Amino acid sequence: MSLIYHESVWPYIYAEAISLLCGVFLVAIIKPDKEIGYREGFAIVVLSWTAAGVFGALPFVFSGKLGFIDALFESISGFTTTGSTVFGDLEDLPKGLHFWRAMTQWLGGMGIIILSLAILPLLGIGGMQLYQAEMPGVTKDKLAPRIQDTARILWGVYIFFTIFEVLLLLPAGLNLYEALCHAFTTLATGGFSTRTASVAAFDSAYVDYVITAFMFLAGVNFSLHYRFLKGELDAYFKNEEFRFYVLVGLVAIFICVLFNHLSGTYHNPLLNLRYSVFQVWSIMTTTGYGTADFALWHPVCQLLLLILMFFGGMAGSTGGGVKQIRFLILFKFVRFQIRKLIHPRAVEIIRYDEHKVAESVIQGILGFMALYALVFMIASLLVCAQGIDIITATSAVAATLNNIGPGLAKVGPTQNFGWFPDFSKLVLTFCMLAGRLELYTVVILFSREYWRGARKPLFRF
Amino acid sequence: MSLIYHESVWPYIYAEAISLLCGVFLVAIIKPDKEIGYREGFAIVVLSWTAAGVFGALPFVFSGKLGFIDALFESISGFTTTGSTVFGDLEDLPKGLHFWRAMTQWLGGMGIIILSLAILPLLGIGGMQLYQAEMPGVTKDKLAPRIQDTARILWGVYIFFTIFEVLLLLPAGLNLYEALCHAFTTLATGGFSTRTASVAAFDSAYVDYVITAFMFLAGVNFSLHYRFLKGELDAYFKNEEFRFYVLVGLVAIFICVLFNHLSGTYHNPLLNLRYSVFQVWSIMTTTGYGTADFALWHPVCQLLLLILMFFGGMAGSTGGGVKQIRFLILFKFVRFQIRKLIHPRAVEIIRYDEHKVAESVIQGILGFMALYALVFMIASLLVCAQGIDIITATSAVAATLNNIGPGLAKVGPTQNFGWFPDFSKLVLTFCMLAGRLELYTVVILFSREYWRGARKPLFRF
Repeated sequence: MSLIYHESVWPYIYAEAISLLCGVFLVAIIKPDKEIGYREGFAIVVLSWTAAGVFGALPFVFSGKLGFIDALFESISGFTTTGSTVFGDLEDLPKGLHFWRAMTQWLGGMGIIILSLAILPLLGIGGMQLYQAEMPGVTKDKLAPRIQDTARILWGVYIFFTIFEVLLLLPAGLNLYEALCHAFTTLATGGFSTRTASVAAFDSAYVDYVITAFMFLAGVNFSLHYRFLKGELDAYFKNEEFRFYVLVGLVAIFICVLFNHLSGTYHNPLLNLRYSVFQVWSIMTTTGYGTADFALWHPVCQLLLLILMFFGGMAGSTGGGVKQIRFLILFKFVRFQIRKLIHPRAVEIIRYDEHKVAESVIQGILGFMALYALVFMIASLLVCAQGIDIITATSAVAATLNNIGPGLAKVGPTQNFGWFPDFSKLVLTFCMLAGRLELYTVVILFSREYWRGARKPLFRF
Repeated sequence: MSLIYHESVWPYIYAEAISLLCGVFLVAIIKPDKEIGYREGFAIVVLSWTAAGVFGALPFVFSGKLGFIDALFESISGFTTTGSTVFGDLEDLPKGLHFWRAMTQWLGGMGIIILSLAILPLLGIGGMQLYQAEMPGVTKDKLAPRIQDTARILWGVYIFFTIFEVLLLLPAGLNLYEALCHAFTTLATGGFSTRTASVAAFDSAYVDYVITAFMFLAGVNFSLHYRFLKGELDAYFKNEEFRFYVLVGLVAIFICVLFNHLSGTYHNPLLNLRYSVFQVWSIMTTTGYGTADFALWHPVCQLLLLILMFFGGMAGSTGGGVKQIRFLILFKFVRFQIRKLIHPRAVEIIRYDEHKVAESVIQGILGFMALYALVFMIASLLVCAQGIDIITATSAVAATLNNIGPGLAKVGPTQNFGWFPDFSKLVLTFCMLAGRLELYTVVILFSREYWRGARKPLFRF
């Protein structure tokens, strides 16, 4: 891209050279273990994502645009498909760097689909055992070929949708470079844009609705797409989480349209609908693109969007947040508890997609949400400790932990994260990683048990 | 009190007459069932608290100071020991009415101790089965005498502490009327004051520390007080929830003192300590008295106080909130989940006070917290829907649901709830009741199952 647009290619060549050298060095000195245990699984997931972030930060540093901490923030924001940025003026960046930013998100999105559909269920994290049976592809006994086959299939779907979106965006007047960048960041539910004004810059109902459609698709479990594309036409609506995801979105859109209308935010009903639909799916799928400054909407819409930030996409999508399935099971669990109080001796069970949900899955989901609240609380306190006001701090943590991008107040849709003190940037970077890797993966590495119980070194040198 | 201060006694006589008439009428027409089932238990708890609120509102109405909705808000705020008020200028009220306000809280506090230690454990609400064995007094087979004995013992302790506080406050120059009013509202962790400036009006370190001590005591499980007073000197520290309650408070005080010092809020370290200690216990025990305007404190202190609002007192105290025990078990549950991920095949259990915590208790606690979050969310949306900003709306809901009193922004320590639209007042009144009665009791009455399954009428006429 830099060559095409006659920009300096050296930042990328330097970065590639360093990455390559480090890679070759690691391959040379580490003799991999034949067996990968649970413990190693956690370490591999976290280390590989961190390494991607660190090496991905190099082009930002070598281009002279950012210091290392800012570059790390931007790069991790990319790979985790968060979309928070430290750049105030995006039009100022070289096109090559924009392309790299968009690519970090696209690659991160790819990684997350496999992680959530193939690896986390095996590690049994946060109730994701539910999806153990959902992996498309073959069911051989060995882990590696299974993950490889799953990966090939899902990435095929991912690439198919990306090309499809590019083809739909081109007729709207976007050039290939901008169409690619936005398709990359839509499918990843990342939200990095080449424009400071985000998608609002194109000011086109067509572009808004095309992007909305693909944000919606990116928030859907990719194994459902695979099944649908294979001809299983009822794959989507047969799935309970999908129905819940659609319902939550529609109810939110209805409320936003209603209150934006009543409060007179938009007098044109079509504009109201377009902005409400876009913003609800952008926030709920944790993409974070902006077409309207929702900080000016009716308070109930703002609070609703804040709540939707936590709902996130479906599990197995590129969307972040707590995930729809967990809220669905949570609601069922509350109902289950109420029933048990009324009929203390009756045997009640919780069903999902017509199957009984195992006790351990429910416990995993409840534990996940408790840990989520805990991390949210501690991270917010750490950011506040630097003298940052409560709304900015908590919404910045919500925006990074849920991998959304923009928050409220000083990190609102028209602001950026560049002004934060370094320590806060590191806390928020941690939140992006922790949120993206379903918390436990990261938090576990900080527990005494993880290290105390290690009977063998993680790697053999 | 009205007679002593030569005020009109008619508002109270009218109110008493109406209450008496209704009472006689009900006693006359209702033939009580011999057996009280689970279903009836829930209805009795909610109806009796609501009735107390409705009849308790009459003196406010008849004194001509408030309309019915405002009076209901004030009265329910009293009986639920919340302490939110619709009055802007408290010095304007007759002393008799102040005394009635304080008494609603004191009576409500009494009721809540029995409810949480004797009735809710039997109903199995939100994990409170933990306390089934904690009931002091006899252990006869029949429910009624057991509750009566438990009540007699605990109310003895409650009255003992109240008198003790009055005796300590009198030397500070408070007259008997003000000492009584404040002792009533301290022991109930209610927080109604006779002064608009709350406890700050006395401007005395001695008063602050005496009240802090009794807020601390009021936040402790009253069955521990009973055991201690009976001579079991290690009753407090043997209890894990008590140790947790003390630890959380001390950590919070340390952080507040530190940041108030660093940010230069208070240059006098003794003043800093006094205000921090007071405010932490006032908020955490959900009393809600003010000596300092914490809206001016360092952001980390403000966020910390917001979080403490949810911790609340110990179960079996007059304090509101989620209760310390639930957070303690929640933290243990998160650790338990992390351990299970590291050792998937190991058998792990959660212990409290050296006993294994039953699965159903943990489920009850997790379900309770989920429902808490859900009610918090819906109530906040309903208040926001009337055009009230997010911080005011969410903190008003937090302040009422946790039975604290003041919130932030437009319901901050120096503001009141009088300006809310009627609908919001009703939503907040519901929150006070729901929070005080441990949610399930109230929410259950709105579930289809509750009514559908009813095989016999609640009362026989």
